[in-house]
Amino acid sequence: MDHVGVAVEDWQKSLHDFAILLGTEASDEELLDKEGVRTAFFQTGNTRVELLGATRAESPVGKFLSRRGEGLHHIAFAVKNLDQTLIRLQEKGFSLTSGGIRKGSGGKRICFLQPKQTHGILIELCEKK
Amino acid sequence: MDHVGVAVEDWQKSLHDFAILLGTEASDEELLDKEGVRTAFFQTGNTRVELLGATRAESPVGKFLSRRGEGLHHIAFAVKNLDQTLIRLQEKGFSLTSGGIRKGSGGKRICFLQPKQTHGILIELCEKK
Repeated sequence: MDHVGVAVEDWQKSLHDFAILLGTEASDEELLDKEGVRTAFFQTGNTRVELLGATRAESPVGKFLSRRGEGLHHIAFAVKNLDQTLIRLQEKGFSLTSGGIRKGSGGKRICFLQPKQTHGILIELCEKK
Repeated sequence: MDHVGVAVEDWQKSLHDFAILLGTEASDEELLDKEGVRTAFFQTGNTRVELLGATRAESPVGKFLSRRGEGLHHIAFAVKNLDQTLIRLQEKGFSLTSGGIRKGSGGKRICFLQPKQTHGILIELCEKK
C-alpha cells in the first residue's frame, strides 16, 4: 500500500493535527492545479497518509467534501507495471474512472478504479518510478 | 499502519473481489460476537486490508452500512504502548469513542479516537503483542 488519502477542510489545522496524531511532520506539499487539489504526505513507517485539500469547490475533492464532509477518501496501491495490472483487472471486469491514466502527485502515473465495482472504495493504482 | 478497515455488505462476494484486487487470499477470518462484526484480513506487503461485515443491523458496522453504505471505515495504527500513546494524545485534546479500550481482532487491546477530533476519520489504535 502506497498511501491512504484523507480529504480535509482546513489545510493548516489539518497539517497541525495530523503531525500530532502521527508523530511526524508533513512533507512533499504539492499543488496539482489541474486536479484542483493540494496534497501533503506523512510517512508512517511502512506507508503514508496523504492529506487532500480542495483548491476549488467544483474539483473532485471539493465535491467529495461538500457531499460527505471530511474523512477517508481513497487508498492507493503501488504497482510495478500499471498497464499490465490494468489488463489483469479489466479481464476480471474492473474498470477505470472517467479520468483514466494521468499524472498524480510526485509525477507518478496513476488511475482510479470505479468504486461501484470495489465495494464503495476509491482505489488508486500508482506506478512505481 | 497496521491495517485499513473496509465495511462490506456481501461477505462472500467481498472475499472473492478483494482477493482478485489485492492478488492474495484472505486469512484470519474471525467473528467478534460482542461487537456484531465478522472480520478477515488481506496481507498487502507492508500493511493489511481488513474486511468488516455486520452480523447484526444494530451493531456499529451495521449502522455504518445503513448510514453510509459500503466503503472505507477506519485506519488502524499499531503502537507499542497503548496507555502511553493515549496519555500523549489526551494531553493534546484527543479523546476516545465511548467504547473505550477493548479486545479487538486477534485479541489485541484496541481503542478508537473520536472522529470529530480527527477530521472525520475513525482512527483505531492497536497495541502490538
